[in-house]
Amino acid sequence: MASQAEHVAMRRAVELSARALDTTPPNPDVGCVILGPDGTVAGEGWHERPGGPHAEVVALRAAGSRARGGTALVTLEPCSHAGRTGPCTSALADAGIARVVYAVADPNPVAAGGAGVLRAHGVDVEAGLLADDAAAVNARWLTPFRTGRPFVTWKYAATLDGRSAARDGSSRWITGPESRAEVHRLRAAVDTVVVGAGTVVADDPHLAARSDGETLPYQTQPLRVVVDSTERTPAGARVRDASAPTWIATADEVGADPDGKVDLAKLLTALYEQGRRYVLLEGGPVLAGAFWQAGLVDRVVGYVAPALLGAGPHALGEAGVGAIAAAIRLDVTDVATVGDDIRITAVPRKKV
Amino acid sequence: MASQAEHVAMRRAVELSARALDTTPPNPDVGCVILGPDGTVAGEGWHERPGGPHAEVVALRAAGSRARGGTALVTLEPCSHAGRTGPCTSALADAGIARVVYAVADPNPVAAGGAGVLRAHGVDVEAGLLADDAAAVNARWLTPFRTGRPFVTWKYAATLDGRSAARDGSSRWITGPESRAEVHRLRAAVDTVVVGAGTVVADDPHLAARSDGETLPYQTQPLRVVVDSTERTPAGARVRDASAPTWIATADEVGADPDGKVDLAKLLTALYEQGRRYVLLEGGPVLAGAFWQAGLVDRVVGYVAPALLGAGPHALGEAGVGAIAAAIRLDVTDVATVGDDIRITAVPRKKV
Repeated sequence: MASQAEHVAMRRAVELSARALDTTPPNPDVGCVILGPDGTVAGEGWHERPGGPHAEVVALRAAGSRARGGTALVTLEPCSHAGRTGPCTSALADAGIARVVYAVADPNPVAAGGAGVLRAHGVDVEAGLLADDAAAVNARWLTPFRTGRPFVTWKYAATLDGRSAARDGSSRWITGPESRAEVHRLRAAVDTVVVGAGTVVADDPHLAARSDGETLPYQTQPLRVVVDSTERTPAGARVRDASAPTWIATADEVGADPDGKVDLAKLLTALYEQGRRYVLLEGGPVLAGAFWQAGLVDRVVGYVAPALLGAGPHALGEAGVGAIAAAIRLDVTDVATVGDDIRITAVPRKKV
Repeated sequence: MASQAEHVAMRRAVELSARALDTTPPNPDVGCVILGPDGTVAGEGWHERPGGPHAEVVALRAAGSRARGGTALVTLEPCSHAGRTGPCTSALADAGIARVVYAVADPNPVAAGGAGVLRAHGVDVEAGLLADDAAAVNARWLTPFRTGRPFVTWKYAATLDGRSAARDGSSRWITGPESRAEVHRLRAAVDTVVVGAGTVVADDPHLAARSDGETLPYQTQPLRVVVDSTERTPAGARVRDASAPTWIATADEVGADPDGKVDLAKLLTALYEQGRRYVLLEGGPVLAGAFWQAGLVDRVVGYVAPALLGAGPHALGEAGVGAIAAAIRLDVTDVATVGDDIRITAVPRKKV
């Protein structure tokens, strides 16, 4: 039974786990707080980036000798395997940690079993404290294990009145340079970018992650996927260039839904089987509507420009909603200003 | 020439002036900081509500005897007339204030001349410090003096994707109860609410300010104006009931624009001549688009619900924008969460 101090510490560990959301992929978002034997905070840490130390190791370093006889609060079950860094179970046991409380069990078959290893070292282990909160922060990493498909973030850019282009189709630029730079960092964090063929025909986007002088977190480029039910992606489309891999996903190859269009659930399963875990859905409105209609969006990141157009294409097209009672309801998880724009992050509201 | 300390104090006075935005109408939004003779802050104040003490008086009370020989920083020229409260010029002089720095000259012919009165009392007076910033906060009150028409706030409620109703026209409720309560407080703060006849026909809104158990800042109700170019407001429309005054403004009465519709500039002039100073434009999309096209909107307050519809009427209709380069650009002045919703406040970007 976790103490009040442990509750508070786990709450803090969950906060810490959210610090590095877009630099950790493909690794999980994890936070850790070490309480010394006297029950006060001895050290804190979070996992910053692949190849960097795990949250537990960062927190143990900060705690130093105060970790001995103490308690570790971790948002994810400590790993028991040696990847680029040694197993956290060993680090915790070696530091003399007497008790480990973790929020979410590790669903990764390679790394799981940490609780058992810790118990074998004589460490007292408790699971499940603030599991829902920790899982919400780490949803990007946990979702593929739970669903067998990649985590899908729908990104859109629109004016205050929900337009993604003007009446004449022009859309460069609705949002400011700061927002566009952020989208490039987001592309560098995911492993897959998905657009519809309509967007390729209309805008001829490139979709690779460009740093424009900044250092991107990864040198790898996402797979560019064009959902192309009618095989209309032009031969000379920029998305076909050599700067990143590209997959023109057709209904023939992926499988068709009852309307003869690319079956989106099958598309995501195919991507998962190719090792893809994190999809950035970039539009257009028709494809975004189809993803929502199929219930396949896990998160929304909207870049809202303080501008009005009054006409032009929408950020979101038909999503199967006929009446207000059937609206797709979301919970806002973050609102921030990015340059002159407003970034709104939200997740689908859980049915209660 | 204002000192560095006076700059800092005026910056603070401008902040204070923004504290009570929707409880001050029809009075101006004013902030005041008193510096003692040693140059440190002796007192602060802002004008809270009609009938309440002016900002200068609040600040003088807080400063007490430390005001003697000190400096008053005020965002608006101190008034020299006795309304519901005595003239601020007398209060300042009586308290022994040696110097007054104000940001914006009082354009109100009844209250103006404060600077001269102060000088006649032997007070050193300087004008214009941070005038643009102070004027921006007080724009609701200053605009009618400068333009001869009421200040116009366009309020809309929409989903993240910019829809103000679902495909079937249902719109109750897009936003949550906290947002709707705020809109009622906003209606109680303005003196005029304007809608298009299309909205009356479609939604039959009531448009009076209801407190739903809360105490409203005013017991007065705004004038309800229906812009009705084709005289189609139903005889039994709720907006015609006795709970608040109503004006069905027709093209015949107001004057027609070249398209035969109600000329909106003439409408606002007529409202001004009736003593109206603060208009809340509540839609629908066609009328809102026409106001923007005519350049007659001074502020936007958008209540954005974390929901998606993918179809249905827009918050904003045709506004005369054909290409992205012609987009109506705004500057966001505030972003806040209201219940589950996001409230975005913005003003038209000044052409540079």
